Amino acid sequence: MKKYVYLFKEADGSRKDLFGGKGANLAEMTKLGMPVPPGFIITTKACTKYYAEDGNKIAPEVAEQIFKALKKLEAESGKKFGDSQNPFLVSVRSGARASMPGMMDTILNLGLNDVSVKGLATLTGNPRFAYDCYRRFIQMYSDVVTGVGKKEFEEIIGKLKKEKGVELDVQLTAEDLQELIAVFKKHYKEVKKTDFPQDPNEQLLGAVEAVFRSWNNERAIIYRRDNNIPGSWGTAVNVQSMVFGNMGETSGTGVAFTRNPSTGEKKLYGEYLMNAQGEDVVAGIRTPNPIATLENQNEEVYKQFVNIATTLENHYRNMQDMEFTIERGKLYMLQTRNGKRTAASAVKVAVDLVKEGMVTPEEAVCLIEPKQLDALLHPQFDADVIKKTEHIAKGLEASPGAACGKICFNAEEAKKRANEDKDNKNPVILVRQETSPEDIEGMMAAEGILTSRGGMTSHAAVVARGMGTCCVAGCKEVIIDEEAKTVTIGGKTYGSEDYLSLDGTTGKVYAGKIATVDAKLPEDYYTIMEWADKFRALKVRTNADTPVDAAKAFSFGAEGIGLCRTEHMFFAEDRIPRIREMIVAKTTEQREKALAELLPLQKGDFIGLYKEMQGCPVTIRFLDPPLHEFLPKEDADIAVLANEMKIDFKDLKETVKALHEDNPMMGHRGCRLAVTYPEIAAMQTRAVIEAAIECNAEGMNIIPEIMIPLVGEVKEFNFVKDVVDATAKAVMEEKGVTIQYKVGTMIEIPRAALTAGTIAKKADFFSFGTNDLTQMTFGFSRDDSPKFLDSYYKNGIFESDPFAKLDQTGVGKLVEMASKAGRAVNANIKLGICGEHGGDPSSIEFCHNKGLDYVSCSPFRVPIARLAAAQANLKNPRKK
Amino acid sequence: MKKYVYLFKEADGSRKDLFGGKGANLAEMTKLGMPVPPGFIITTKACTKYYAEDGNKIAPEVAEQIFKALKKLEAESGKKFGDSQNPFLVSVRSGARASMPGMMDTILNLGLNDVSVKGLATLTGNPRFAYDCYRRFIQMYSDVVTGVGKKEFEEIIGKLKKEKGVELDVQLTAEDLQELIAVFKKHYKEVKKTDFPQDPNEQLLGAVEAVFRSWNNERAIIYRRDNNIPGSWGTAVNVQSMVFGNMGETSGTGVAFTRNPSTGEKKLYGEYLMNAQGEDVVAGIRTPNPIATLENQNEEVYKQFVNIATTLENHYRNMQDMEFTIERGKLYMLQTRNGKRTAASAVKVAVDLVKEGMVTPEEAVCLIEPKQLDALLHPQFDADVIKKTEHIAKGLEASPGAACGKICFNAEEAKKRANEDKDNKNPVILVRQETSPEDIEGMMAAEGILTSRGGMTSHAAVVARGMGTCCVAGCKEVIIDEEAKTVTIGGKTYGSEDYLSLDGTTGKVYAGKIATVDAKLPEDYYTIMEWADKFRALKVRTNADTPVDAAKAFSFGAEGIGLCRTEHMFFAEDRIPRIREMIVAKTTEQREKALAELLPLQKGDFIGLYKEMQGCPVTIRFLDPPLHEFLPKEDADIAVLANEMKIDFKDLKETVKALHEDNPMMGHRGCRLAVTYPEIAAMQTRAVIEAAIECNAEGMNIIPEIMIPLVGEVKEFNFVKDVVDATAKAVMEEKGVTIQYKVGTMIEIPRAALTAGTIAKKADFFSFGTNDLTQMTFGFSRDDSPKFLDSYYKNGIFESDPFAKLDQTGVGKLVEMASKAGRAVNANIKLGICGEHGGDPSSIEFCHNKGLDYVSCSPFRVPIARLAAAQANLKNPRKK
Repeated sequence: MKKYVYLFKEADGSRKDLFGGKGANLAEMTKLGMPVPPGFIITTKACTKYYAEDGNKIAPEVAEQIFKALKKLEAESGKKFGDSQNPFLVSVRSGARASMPGMMDTILNLGLNDVSVKGLATLTGNPRFAYDCYRRFIQMYSDVVTGVGKKEFEEIIGKLKKEKGVELDVQLTAEDLQELIAVFKKHYKEVKKTDFPQDPNEQLLGAVEAVFRSWNNERAIIYRRDNNIPGSWGTAVNVQSMVFGNMGETSGTGVAFTRNPSTGEKKLYGEYLMNAQGEDVVAGIRTPNPIATLENQNEEVYKQFVNIATTLENHYRNMQDMEFTIERGKLYMLQTRNGKRTAASAVKVAVDLVKEGMVTPEEAVCLIEPKQLDALLHPQFDADVIKKTEHIAKGLEASPGAACGKICFNAEEAKKRANEDKDNKNPVILVRQETSPEDIEGMMAAEGILTSRGGMTSHAAVVARGMGTCCVAGCKEVIIDEEAKTVTIGGKTYGSEDYLSLDGTTGKVYAGKIATVDAKLPEDYYTIMEWADKFRALKVRTNADTPVDAAKAFSFGAEGIGLCRTEHMFFAEDRIPRIREMIVAKTTEQREKALAELLPLQKGDFIGLYKEMQGCPVTIRFLDPPLHEFLPKEDADIAVLANEMKIDFKDLKETVKALHEDNPMMGHRGCRLAVTYPEIAAMQTRAVIEAAIECNAEGMNIIPEIMIPLVGEVKEFNFVKDVVDATAKAVMEEKGVTIQYKVGTMIEIPRAALTAGTIAKKADFFSFGTNDLTQMTFGFSRDDSPKFLDSYYKNGIFESDPFAKLDQTGVGKLVEMASKAGRAVNANIKLGICGEHGGDPSSIEFCHNKGLDYVSCSPFRVPIARLAAAQANLKNPRKK
Repeated sequence: MKKYVYLFKEADGSRKDLFGGKGANLAEMTKLGMPVPPGFIITTKACTKYYAEDGNKIAPEVAEQIFKALKKLEAESGKKFGDSQNPFLVSVRSGARASMPGMMDTILNLGLNDVSVKGLATLTGNPRFAYDCYRRFIQMYSDVVTGVGKKEFEEIIGKLKKEKGVELDVQLTAEDLQELIAVFKKHYKEVKKTDFPQDPNEQLLGAVEAVFRSWNNERAIIYRRDNNIPGSWGTAVNVQSMVFGNMGETSGTGVAFTRNPSTGEKKLYGEYLMNAQGEDVVAGIRTPNPIATLENQNEEVYKQFVNIATTLENHYRNMQDMEFTIERGKLYMLQTRNGKRTAASAVKVAVDLVKEGMVTPEEAVCLIEPKQLDALLHPQFDADVIKKTEHIAKGLEASPGAACGKICFNAEEAKKRANEDKDNKNPVILVRQETSPEDIEGMMAAEGILTSRGGMTSHAAVVARGMGTCCVAGCKEVIIDEEAKTVTIGGKTYGSEDYLSLDGTTGKVYAGKIATVDAKLPEDYYTIMEWADKFRALKVRTNADTPVDAAKAFSFGAEGIGLCRTEHMFFAEDRIPRIREMIVAKTTEQREKALAELLPLQKGDFIGLYKEMQGCPVTIRFLDPPLHEFLPKEDADIAVLANEMKIDFKDLKETVKALHEDNPMMGHRGCRLAVTYPEIAAMQTRAVIEAAIECNAEGMNIIPEIMIPLVGEVKEFNFVKDVVDATAKAVMEEKGVTIQYKVGTMIEIPRAALTAGTIAKKADFFSFGTNDLTQMTFGFSRDDSPKFLDSYYKNGIFESDPFAKLDQTGVGKLVEMASKAGRAVNANIKLGICGEHGGDPSSIEFCHNKGLDYVSCSPFRVPIARLAAAQANLKNPRKK
């Protein structure tokens, strides 16, 4: 029989794939002789089996192994499940291969029932404690396992407190709690038509199954999508003997990091609460004490914990994030994991670890999540402005960065407003008492997050740091009225139309809009990037359409422009009238006249780009969008334009009508425009070549790269290339100068990938346009698919958005086929990618593995790409 | 040095690829000892070299070989090029591998100049003849080689005739013609700024190059597209000693078929004109005499010709189409080729040739162009109606079939009107004096063609027969005023809004609309189809959405339904209100209620289909189009519907807005609907299964095939299949009956083809939906691409419409990959095709070669597919 259940002491601490992160580390700590409450792990394989083989039921052989392991724990502890004298209680916690904090379910105090609660009371001599545990268990179990709402239970508590005339939970007596338990059980029976389960074995299986199920709850699916975690991994379940941080004033619980997760400072960092269970700290309901003050509370325990923390950091050679409980003065370790940290902290910790001789530069580069760098690159408030501005409140500096936006009071609305706000002109600040895992999408959508409760390890803080979103947490001055949709700070009330500005680095909150300035990158960042550049094989270019973007990208380390979308230049105010004249032209001559006026402007653009890139390659893509994008659609706008252009309304309306397309993404665009209007390609060629000649006259050595878009058939490419070559030749003859230039194509149409071997014969380079290639390969319109993709995530058909993360199975197959076929006929062909995927780490790894020469991404993602490329090459070194 | 030029007597008559059809057959006739004027062939390789290697110039080595061959001809004839005493004259004619009548250029009388014309006059003792030849040559050469318009020359002739007070060309004297020549030459010089070429060698190279160039003229490109002739073949050029049919009353020229090209009757069939050149017969300017009357004209020549005709038919074992010239009583053969024929003639000739022992049934099946069968299947006028209807005119029965439509006076307008008339509700009858190759697109667009001039071998007649379009030619009663856009027949005038009805089988023209009835298929057709069915490996199914279509297809030999588009059922008047209710439903319950009302209707549809197909497989595709297709778009229509549906206008408008898609072809459609609304798939499954159970209860054995559309990812397929299986199981349990059914998918998304290996694991069949697959693989919207495809044809980027003829390179590669991958994991998987390509012979051949199990096409194309499938298997027999 396959083994699905392992005691902590049996499990291999290196097998996170099988035991999950939490389980593997508990096993490892056990082996290291640390005070870990005994327990066992139900493997991830049991979870995948649950879904794939057992029809979402726990198979008998798994249940059998669970109870066998339980018996061993009972024997070891001398306690017994459900016993009236010496009851054995356990916690049941999820633990996936990758840490997914708060995403899945946890149940504490399992094993309590009407009988064992008495045992616990006797054993601890503290009936109030025992009945409090029992009522917590009933609440938690009902919610997590059976879905009986926790809201109703909270109402019942509220009602009882009112009756008893008390304010806090802790003021309820043991008798009150017994009364409460009876009411809870009654409510449970009313809803579920069955008694609350008294059999601890039944409770245990129910809890294990609930954890398995929670692997596929909506927030876990969203989290996985955002963090590239495959659904196929499954979660392990950890069943562990309970220890109690709420067994009185000598008990407590806390979390701590071996270094500061915000700054990277090498100093134990964390917080604890006495007489509390772990959830109390994480949920941020009570504001906890700094870890250092634990020394005053219990010096011995503090020293022991510091020792353990040091040992763990040295053992894992990485900053650790630990959970502990003190039960009646005795320390227990409940968890350790590599600590989530801010980008600033991440680069500092990585560089420090190298300085301390704990890791090599290669390892250090792999310690940083590339996407995190975003946070370092994000703008900050202008220091001068801030100096002169009074803050209206101050909270905890939960996640660094600056954010400014209109107030939004719930996650759903934040998501909605962000969706409607395509250009990110109206960012929102999510303002909540505290956040919970259900809020995750709204948090992703928000520019910044402000909470009135919770600490540095509260949900809001942990999640915001992970996302690189600015967050000020636990800001007590903030009084929220969710119903009225107002927030009162310092006596002044703000509504949904008001702006707030948050500084996540200082924890300060400002009223109104505050301008931001670019982030200053820490020195350690440059050290890391220097290492990364040494370790990577892929070149990193940028997608930039303007000299400003190009300069930004160059400063971020871009080694060229991989995609300059020339149409973006045409939308400028001084260009669009000319492009419109070109569109309404009735003859080639009229069209050429309008194009001639665009020529000097376009040439100026290219000179600007060449100069900013200082001789690095610049790839210029020829006009791509359908021409109707340059014209208005509505009659009123057409009338205005007709007037401006001094042409007949009817005429212009006819042109707009004639250009209308049912499916513009598959319409008259890309090189299809150059086939029908070769004069456009000729003008663009002239601009590219003349600009290069001028720059070269000033001593530069520009070798421009012309990219022909949307090729699907080699003859299309050759036709446009002939226009380019003939024009380039003419320009060079006119100017009496010869320059080199390259002509290549986007591979963005499936047919281009399928016939790449013939296209490569005359192409100098291929750039995979994976946005369009994804559209066509899936038959998914980028604009329309979001409407139905939610159903796809919900039904587990997709785990991630194929427009964000490259579909390696389908689209990737085309990339691979085209790369191979292209290289086979043209060994010198340059291969790159310039879709959005060029800035996505997992897609970059794919590009590296498939032997591409470069990736091209938006300026702010250049550092991410550099780091991801290095990690890819360290993982799978490319042969030189 | 490679050989590019061959004398007729050197060339191998079996190498049509190298010598073209005309050249190869001239060589063959020469070898057979027939009276062929000597000549030589410039090979197709010289043509492809001209385009591919020599930069559209005749290479020196080719010119050298031409002149060497010319010298041999001169020596043989004792005449000399450009000689003042005994001048040598040649014709220069194109000749491609496949016959392309009238598509490319011809030049006669080449070698004439100011000097040799005198020699010709002396030699023939007929100065008028000589100068007439010269002026014809100047006209033809100027037009064809240098593009100096023939219109102007015609005007000059008109002017001269007026001056001289004559009506006909033949009334002009030798002196008049000399005057004319001088004016022609003057005009030429004015336009071309150079003298009309006097050097016969220069004339010859110019003519050869013009023929090469004409390979890529627009009408040739269109003809090739319509006839699946690759542009890479090139044309050969035939240079032949001139013989003159216009050397007086003992000279003449004619064309003849060994059998009747309309009926297949075994009887020499053709026509001739005395004192005329070949162009006079073909152009249809004078109406020629039946071939049989040649016996009276010159019995000896007639007998000789009949002998030659018989020999040629026996030699080629096929009906021959021959051109001949009689020069002063001596017969010369100028051409023989397999005769183009009507479908009725084709089946009769094929069956007769088998009866006569000339060919085997296998060969007979290959003698028929599958697309021709269309003509046999097209409707005819109701004989009873016709009996009672007076015809208003009678012309030649140029191409059989019946047609009825509004009058249209030019090809361009015919094309335009047909393009606007998507549903073919307003067909047009193209009415012209005579047609010319430039009219080809308009002729394709017309329902029928009526000409007032020209014979059975005129352009209109030949082309219409080839296209299977009804045509009445040479109808002298028809008086056309092109300017006024009227036609007067028997004193009555008809305009663009009037209807005409044509009977191409009788040559009769009727005023107004006449109803048509289905064609009766000739007995020979059944013989051919019986043979075809014996020889083919591919099954032929049909795309049919209604019992009526299914019945039609079944009668045409369909062996099942390969595609039933269920949405077409939803557009019916009794269905669409219900589908709309489903769309506006706000809850699953409301949706299910609307679907429940559709269920019995849908079930009835399926019962109808099952019954018509008599147990043959029926593949039912689930709902495919985006839901907005069922709703109106304009406010006014929305208001009407809102009123009908008793819902708020705003509400409905909101729904319409929410359903709007930017690129609906890549939007929320196909299985994506079933993923978001599984209840739709459940209803359709229930209808399919319940219908089958009911039919099986009546003794049938229906195994329905459910086809899930637009799958791109295996999990989509599995998700919908799970819904299908669960519903089917429920229905079978309810009814207490078990039936078999199959679940498969369309492969129409590139990603489905790329990942077919995983999809095939659970799929019973794949049906290649090559319409969508072509769209996505090319990134071409079917609706929008016609706008730019013209540029593609013009620039030689495409040779055919990829939506009509399967793109074997790109789309075909996906079909092949998916077939291989599917079969590799599921040896029993059924593979078919149900796109438009399923009825296209070249695509059917591809499907055969790639091992598909069946093709599915529209009912009228079923016979075509059966024949094409047989031909494919005879060409490349499939291993059993």
